[in-house]
Amino acid sequence: MLPYKILFHVNELNRWPVALLNLRNLIKDTGSENIQAEVVANGPAVLLYATSPEIGEKLPPTWNNEFRQQLLRDMQELRELGIPFLACANALKMNALEEKSLHPFVTVIPAGITEIVKKQAEGYGYVKP
Amino acid sequence: MLPYKILFHVNELNRWPVALLNLRNLIKDTGSENIQAEVVANGPAVLLYATSPEIGEKLPPTWNNEFRQQLLRDMQELRELGIPFLACANALKMNALEEKSLHPFVTVIPAGITEIVKKQAEGYGYVKP
Amino acid sequence: MLPYKILFHVNELNRWPVALLNLRNLIKDTGSENIQAEVVANGPAVLLYATSPEIGEKLPPTWNNEFRQQLLRDMQELRELGIPFLACANALKMNALEEKSLHPFVTVIPAGITEIVKKQAEGYGYVKP
Repeated sequence: MLPYKILFHVNELNRWPVALLNLRNLIKDTGSENIQAEVVANGPAVLLYATSPEIGEKLPPTWNNEFRQQLLRDMQELRELGIPFLACANALKMNALEEKSLHPFVTVIPAGITEIVKKQAEGYGYVKP
Repeated sequence: MLPYKILFHVNELNRWPVALLNLRNLIKDTGSENIQAEVVANGPAVLLYATSPEIGEKLPPTWNNEFRQQLLRDMQELRELGIPFLACANALKMNALEEKSLHPFVTVIPAGITEIVKKQAEGYGYVKP
Repeated sequence: MLPYKILFHVNELNRWPVALLNLRNLIKDTGSENIQAEVVANGPAVLLYATSPEIGEKLPPTWNNEFRQQLLRDMQELRELGIPFLACANALKMNALEEKSLHPFVTVIPAGITEIVKKQAEGYGYVKP
């Protein structure tokens, strides 16, 4: 049964803090060696992946720059623990983002929804934080 | 593994545009022959299935009639590609809708939640757009 | 295939009424003997588990005390039908709740997210009401 396989689905910006907290709690509880997780972002959630300072205007109004940078550091740390952060290419296009404008820890995939479907067919669980 | 089996759960009206976009992207990416999908609507999400013009008042205020009709055309096209659109009978009752007042591409089932449970037991994945 | 195994994930207070309605409909439709369900609450959703009258101020403004008590009675009844109501200890800490301040039908677990991952690995379906 181990490692546990789980896909996190994030499609709204305001769910990122919860998703990252859930991931940290999961790893703290089980150990990163027992978890095979990945994060699939589509919809406007992909905006957090962008490096441009101007994107700040499209993020939730309660997020100041410090909070935004903390979320990105959390992602970076989770990436270093082996958790991929995926971006749906359709969502990037809809949000006028190019792949080169994303943080380097992000991996672009053609369609987030296909990843969600395929991974469950491969035995991953699903969670919508 | 093919076709991929996936159930879309929609229980809020404002998630319909995302759900239908996800379905179109999924089919574009994998081909409809590789997808065995279905959409289960419960809660107020079933209101979009209704034909009556008056229902427009219960839809999100940013949806004009043109937008509503476009969503219905998208559903119709997806239905023709083999994707059932299911309506929970409990939700219809709670929203004062009769089966005969629904668009003909909709299929009524006794309980949306039972469908969600059964289909996963049969190997379907789950996504909440 | 029977009993159907299903995990309900509730992480926002305003989803409790829908989750409890879904559970009641599921049991009405299939019979409680055919369902092996559990409810995992994390995030602010755990606040409904608290006994203190003061918690009322943190609940949705449209919930009066009568509504709150009805939800708790619904939970109690479902618990008596064999459905565990689990509380994430991380969420309790974040919401300044102690285990002893919760209704006796609630069971505290170390991490809600781990339960969500483990149960799906054991063959449970997932629903986010």
